[in-house]
Amino acid sequence: MAKVLTTRAENYAQWYNDLVIKADLAENSAVRGCMVIKPYGYAIWEKMQAELDRMFKETDHVNAYFPLFIPKSFFSKEANHVEGFAKECAVVTHYRLKNDPEGKGVVVDETAKLEEELIIRPTSETIIWNTYKNWIQSYRDLPLLINQWANVVRWEMRTRLFLRTTEFLWQEGHTAHATENEAVEETLKILNIYSDFAQEYLGVPVIKGVKTENEKFAGAIDTYCIEALMQDGKALQAGTSHFLGQNFAKAFDVKYATKEGKEEHVWATSWGVTTRLIGALIMAHSDDKGLVLPPKLAPFQVVIVPIYRKPDEYERTCKRAHEIKKELKALGISVKVDDRDTHKPGWKFAEYELKGVPVRLAIGPRDLENNTVEVSRRDNLTKDFISQDGIAAYLSDLLDEIQENIFSKALKFRDENIREANTWDEFLELLDTGGFISAHWDGTAETEKAIQEQTKATIRCIPMDAKQENGVCIKSGKPSNQRVLFAKAY
Amino acid sequence: MAKVLTTRAENYAQWYNDLVIKADLAENSAVRGCMVIKPYGYAIWEKMQAELDRMFKETDHVNAYFPLFIPKSFFSKEANHVEGFAKECAVVTHYRLKNDPEGKGVVVDETAKLEEELIIRPTSETIIWNTYKNWIQSYRDLPLLINQWANVVRWEMRTRLFLRTTEFLWQEGHTAHATENEAVEETLKILNIYSDFAQEYLGVPVIKGVKTENEKFAGAIDTYCIEALMQDGKALQAGTSHFLGQNFAKAFDVKYATKEGKEEHVWATSWGVTTRLIGALIMAHSDDKGLVLPPKLAPFQVVIVPIYRKPDEYERTCKRAHEIKKELKALGISVKVDDRDTHKPGWKFAEYELKGVPVRLAIGPRDLENNTVEVSRRDNLTKDFISQDGIAAYLSDLLDEIQENIFSKALKFRDENIREANTWDEFLELLDTGGFISAHWDGTAETEKAIQEQTKATIRCIPMDAKQENGVCIKSGKPSNQRVLFAKAY
Repeated sequence: MAKVLTTRAENYAQWYNDLVIKADLAENSAVRGCMVIKPYGYAIWEKMQAELDRMFKETDHVNAYFPLFIPKSFFSKEANHVEGFAKECAVVTHYRLKNDPEGKGVVVDETAKLEEELIIRPTSETIIWNTYKNWIQSYRDLPLLINQWANVVRWEMRTRLFLRTTEFLWQEGHTAHATENEAVEETLKILNIYSDFAQEYLGVPVIKGVKTENEKFAGAIDTYCIEALMQDGKALQAGTSHFLGQNFAKAFDVKYATKEGKEEHVWATSWGVTTRLIGALIMAHSDDKGLVLPPKLAPFQVVIVPIYRKPDEYERTCKRAHEIKKELKALGISVKVDDRDTHKPGWKFAEYELKGVPVRLAIGPRDLENNTVEVSRRDNLTKDFISQDGIAAYLSDLLDEIQENIFSKALKFRDENIREANTWDEFLELLDTGGFISAHWDGTAETEKAIQEQTKATIRCIPMDAKQENGVCIKSGKPSNQRVLFAKAY
Repeated sequence: MAKVLTTRAENYAQWYNDLVIKADLAENSAVRGCMVIKPYGYAIWEKMQAELDRMFKETDHVNAYFPLFIPKSFFSKEANHVEGFAKECAVVTHYRLKNDPEGKGVVVDETAKLEEELIIRPTSETIIWNTYKNWIQSYRDLPLLINQWANVVRWEMRTRLFLRTTEFLWQEGHTAHATENEAVEETLKILNIYSDFAQEYLGVPVIKGVKTENEKFAGAIDTYCIEALMQDGKALQAGTSHFLGQNFAKAFDVKYATKEGKEEHVWATSWGVTTRLIGALIMAHSDDKGLVLPPKLAPFQVVIVPIYRKPDEYERTCKRAHEIKKELKALGISVKVDDRDTHKPGWKFAEYELKGVPVRLAIGPRDLENNTVEVSRRDNLTKDFISQDGIAAYLSDLLDEIQENIFSKALKFRDENIREANTWDEFLELLDTGGFISAHWDGTAETEKAIQEQTKATIRCIPMDAKQENGVCIKSGKPSNQRVLFAKAY
């Protein structure tokens, strides 16, 4: 079979794009910057949604839905939000089309102009806090623990499938609390959910940390994040959880009566992960043959390919394949039998390798005789002949092992690619190597910006487990008491 | 407790609006015509989604996601679509805001004007068929059975929560087939799924039928629908399934190579149900005390309220309530224990009546002594003392009985409100009574429009089970060979 992907070594960016397209995950649409998420890619998103939704609900969050549109004036209510948030937004100015008087299709009806323009939500803090104002009167109404699954739009100039698109899908949590402590606790609770989810489901190790002032969300007091490392040595922010203090409560005048009858502003958090996680999943594990999907998020975990030459062999191997499928399904394993006779086994093997199906079973006439089945692992590309007896239990364990192995491999890579730099020269040298650079920084926005301008590296986070350690800033030489993580990032 | 709702008899429309607001289902947002779906309302939508999604997947449909934006020019590609479809759409003309030079918040950056305006999807046939063009080459690529869960926008002038809102949530299926037969079969398969879902889950009896030329979807050959009857005698279209013929395939030039190597245009269907179903659910069953929810879609099916005076009674009744909750959960019943000591039992009773929880359990000190529990049904407002032994199995059966009873009651009402009119005078008389009117119609759009202009009644559908019967049109007196269903409608 011809090579279908550019290799990672040749051109990592091209490899990624090839893979997304050829594995049928997504493609660019007719609308600049917007993607079509194809069924195979969307099935991964649905699995992510199901697990996250379960985790949110187990921690007492509920879902709701707020409008797509935000009145323009809402944006300027929170000063830092409007100042810091990107202004690249889709703006709705009219609400009617009409037939072109010249007969060429439709044109905008200029008489149907909105009094106030509407912005397609790039994030929903403003419209939600404007709503919460009416929902919160007393401490009895708190906490409000609400999440929304939605589409959002940020008018990006340079887009890449999943990683940065004009429209993307996400969940955004917006919670309201009576006390600062409770809101901070919530922020960290969600950060831990994100971290657990990334590690246990995506198989992607992440570092939990706090963003610098420069990098934090516009309107937040503190932005916490999980940072992952991709195979090309670039970092990827995989989720953020913001402690918003009373900023939005003050901007939208949301107060509550305490038990003691005093009026106080409400404390807030917001947090989100997006379809970008699919990009992280792809770039963390996949190889030059295609996707490598962790079993917990694979649209189907096992594919069974019957091998045959003659019609009676086709019939017998297919029959057994479907019997095995039934056994696997009984153990909760998701299975596809590809019994199409329009495609050769070799074509199917390459196809499912490309699509990252964790385990492939091949069953031919000799296997029927020997009561065996050929089991191929996608993660390490090994093959084995396994007895058909107890195959379901065997595969159930194997899928766990694969999930574990994918994570371990990524963890090993990540840990090997965190390096300490103690001087500016060391820093520059390590930047070429890629990965996270752990280094002292003087804590000022000026130094951070200077480093970014000179090298394109940013401070990914101040790790939460950073130990106190005296040192000097690699750039300014000023004193510092802990290391932060630098990297070039997606 | 004070009356919280306008009664149905007083003012049905006001009763509906009161109920949606006071039962915490939804409310109007700051954006004209757009609603906020509150957690309790959204939980009903999630239950609907879960069941429909399961039904779609069991019939081999998969989910995907297409862009929110549609280039303006796409609309005019299918002539009937652009002609017939409402032109009240949200139009995006710019992609950037900037700080107001006069310092008053933000303004639209006039330099960031789109070359071609983008329309927020009111439905996605055009962008999807433009995409399918690249996905379909040969008969091997067919059928494509794709569904999308999404938000859509139609700029409505008169909006009502759930029933008609500018933005709403829905699912839209878009399928592509090699043959006309297969596409018609798909259209009907989905119609049956919608009908089963409405009857088995919403408990709302529906009539399956075909829309007249006047009422069909712009771009369809045939529009099939399910029509329900609300308690005020008005009809509500609860779902539509369109056979699109080759119209969109021709407009977007989507052809496939047949097995024999010929090039043919692809056959299409599209189909959808929306958050409007929540409106149907409310109006079909609820009463002057509040919502009546069918157990299969209730966010929680049973609420347990402990009754107590003294602290030790509180402790003992709460303990028993939580034990019972555990027993119920083990049988798959969703339960809430309301053990808040900030609210009195009477307040809680009224609250859960308003919110339509199918069964309320009250458990007090005397119940502990007698090993009983007070079981109150929301559907018929009856109460019973039942032994705590085997309460879970009892309630499991009771919930089935309630689901059944809600449907039967609605079916009886619906059937009593289908009446035959054989003359114009009879027709006018029955119109005042409300309900469906089964009458002969001459099959012309002119007569249909004349009737609508004079009476506001429309032909809801030509029922699929309509028997052939000779008669004369109630309006024109011309011959007709079957009756159709007229009604005033939402």
